[in-house]
Amino acid sequence: MQAYKGFSKEELLKRKNELSLKYESYKKQGLKLDMSRGKPCTEQLDLSNGLFSHTNDLFTEDGFDCRNYGQFDGIKEVKDLFAELFDISTEELFIGGNSSLNLMYDLIAKAFNHGLNGFEKPWSKLDKVKFLCPCPGYDRHFAITELFGVEMIIVPIKEYGPDIDMIEALVSEDESIKGMWSIPMYSNPTGITYSDDVVQRLASMKTKASDFRIIWDNAYALHHLYDTPDKLADIISLCRESGNPDRVYMFGSTSKVTFPGAGIAFMASSRENIEHIKKQISKQTIGYNKVNMLLHARFLKNVENISEHMKKHAEILRPKFEAVHEILEKNLSGKDVASWNKPNGGYFISLDVYEGCAGKTVKLAKEAGVTFTPAGATFPYGKDPKDSNIRIAPTYPPVSELRTAIEVLCVCVELAVLDLILA
Amino acid sequence: MQAYKGFSKEELLKRKNELSLKYESYKKQGLKLDMSRGKPCTEQLDLSNGLFSHTNDLFTEDGFDCRNYGQFDGIKEVKDLFAELFDISTEELFIGGNSSLNLMYDLIAKAFNHGLNGFEKPWSKLDKVKFLCPCPGYDRHFAITELFGVEMIIVPIKEYGPDIDMIEALVSEDESIKGMWSIPMYSNPTGITYSDDVVQRLASMKTKASDFRIIWDNAYALHHLYDTPDKLADIISLCRESGNPDRVYMFGSTSKVTFPGAGIAFMASSRENIEHIKKQISKQTIGYNKVNMLLHARFLKNVENISEHMKKHAEILRPKFEAVHEILEKNLSGKDVASWNKPNGGYFISLDVYEGCAGKTVKLAKEAGVTFTPAGATFPYGKDPKDSNIRIAPTYPPVSELRTAIEVLCVCVELAVLDLILA
Repeated sequence: MQAYKGFSKEELLKRKNELSLKYESYKKQGLKLDMSRGKPCTEQLDLSNGLFSHTNDLFTEDGFDCRNYGQFDGIKEVKDLFAELFDISTEELFIGGNSSLNLMYDLIAKAFNHGLNGFEKPWSKLDKVKFLCPCPGYDRHFAITELFGVEMIIVPIKEYGPDIDMIEALVSEDESIKGMWSIPMYSNPTGITYSDDVVQRLASMKTKASDFRIIWDNAYALHHLYDTPDKLADIISLCRESGNPDRVYMFGSTSKVTFPGAGIAFMASSRENIEHIKKQISKQTIGYNKVNMLLHARFLKNVENISEHMKKHAEILRPKFEAVHEILEKNLSGKDVASWNKPNGGYFISLDVYEGCAGKTVKLAKEAGVTFTPAGATFPYGKDPKDSNIRIAPTYPPVSELRTAIEVLCVCVELAVLDLILA
Repeated sequence: MQAYKGFSKEELLKRKNELSLKYESYKKQGLKLDMSRGKPCTEQLDLSNGLFSHTNDLFTEDGFDCRNYGQFDGIKEVKDLFAELFDISTEELFIGGNSSLNLMYDLIAKAFNHGLNGFEKPWSKLDKVKFLCPCPGYDRHFAITELFGVEMIIVPIKEYGPDIDMIEALVSEDESIKGMWSIPMYSNPTGITYSDDVVQRLASMKTKASDFRIIWDNAYALHHLYDTPDKLADIISLCRESGNPDRVYMFGSTSKVTFPGAGIAFMASSRENIEHIKKQISKQTIGYNKVNMLLHARFLKNVENISEHMKKHAEILRPKFEAVHEILEKNLSGKDVASWNKPNGGYFISLDVYEGCAGKTVKLAKEAGVTFTPAGATFPYGKDPKDSNIRIAPTYPPVSELRTAIEVLCVCVELAVLDLILA
């Protein structure tokens, strides 16, 4: 792509001048806007204030007192609910604490320390462990594998999912490739959902490493923005049918259903994987917070009620996503300085600016009082090889602040690009 | 000790006969009593039903919304409360999730994977890691080090704490001894509290390994049974004053203050240790359940209120402990078949039966419908070298059931000993 195709140098200088004036006027406003994290907004949180409506007794339907020790893999009510939501059996489920990220970290730590089901030896005993990282992706995933000294290989994300040809070629040849991160639905930050073909091929591809494992972070499975949601194929079944039953571990939580950091998380996998890791987790804890599980089961009730609840989230979020699209469209379309996605769900809009301009754009915005996720954060080691991707998190700020922030961002994008091509 | 000193063989056979009849009559009752775990009873749990009394708003005093992401090391209210309780600064504290055991497991896992503050290299890179295990001790501690392949060395527990001469001798010579488990107050199961001298020597002793660390599981710090509680010296200060500031990590939770598995846990150590591990934990989770922290801060209020709350626990528990002592005294004293402790707090009574008889005793009790913690569980690898220790957990059952269970236990102890010495 060539930015400002057909513009003369004079026109570009004039444009730069206009934008600089606009930028300076924003700077003077003393803005303090934070667009860096995918946090629900207060209105969304208020949707779950009923969580504590039924605390008179804390017994499960089958008479278990959730206030005491026991049932370390989760209470029946919650298992039944998640099993129905994801069309799996309760034996394929483990209910954890408040954080699916923590469950993922624990899985990687256990893979290194003790080995998971089907491992010949723990990964800590190997000279080299590599992970495939579909990019742009989630910085906190990459931070975990970085902490464990894993070599991360970037796999570009396309409209239909990660470059599956590249993945198949890599895993068939390199035994040290032991795993892959993924956010298969409304991916963070690209918003795409893996196609049925991609999911099928991930489940059935031949891997040189018998202990190749996919971390299936299904964080946004319920987080649709529209009535015509994306659909994600069921990788647990596909893995089983393809003779690779132990390949995938799926994760999710209610952090963006009820309260972030005060919800409940789960892990799903083959029965054998879950049975194996339960034995390990039983050495780690006597159990997770079952009172919170029970309150969630009572509040969320059933699949239909959850669907209605998530529609209320969508009603709050839709105008925010649409405001971002409208302003990006108005300011940046037709100039070939940036492209962006219009996701059907999730928490992010991914903006790809002209190569070499993401860092500069985010820096300019920061200096004008608008904080975005640091450029590069969506890539391993915080380094975007094209310096192009910016993650926009539109959920938290009120629409009016959001509009200002994106107007500022658009000015900064153009200024960064003009700086580069006029240099 | 010689059991039944002065008894003739005839008298012993007569006694055995009497007890066998009694045992058979118990068996016929179809008892189903579980004395195996240190669980609070329902009355104790009811003391904390007020935990959900103030859920109208979920903001901290300084205006932070606990329903959203943020403040990953814990909210100010809870830090202030624990800092006052343990006379430490808030910089020496990390507030975790629902389980102190999980925090301890995480610490060991991090010591192996990444190394802790002051480590030259992670323990996973060493050929051999050994831990000192004061015994009898807590099975779940030993299960963690067993999982990590740590070689566990038994250190006998005396009235004043673990054999400190033995510990000093071992750690001064063996660089592969990297750590030590401990429950320094109302120890599980012996009920003893480490003397000031032991704590001082643990803090100041010379260790061959510079990365020797003490896991200070202060699980029963608040759990007094009487108005004249034991007192435990402040090891964090003593370590600092002795020039070993990074030697100790202290743990605790409200599992036996409010609700087991639904409370809040903490870790305390030097500022440098906490600062270092916070960076690692920040890769693991976005934060623990702050809503639960806030509800705990509101319910527990202050140190004085906690003290009153714990007195109510003691009132429920005292009659149970005293019933056990009364029945043990009545049935077993003067026969030299067993000895036991009378703790001032904690959750257990430790019964040492005639050598070689613990396994048999527990087996006989089980066959009569009374389950105790498996014999050997209080030692590494589940093996008590003297086959002598039985852990009694008197807290959960109602007094009437407890009395029956201990009567049965006493019969089983005598039968096991008589079997042995008449063989």
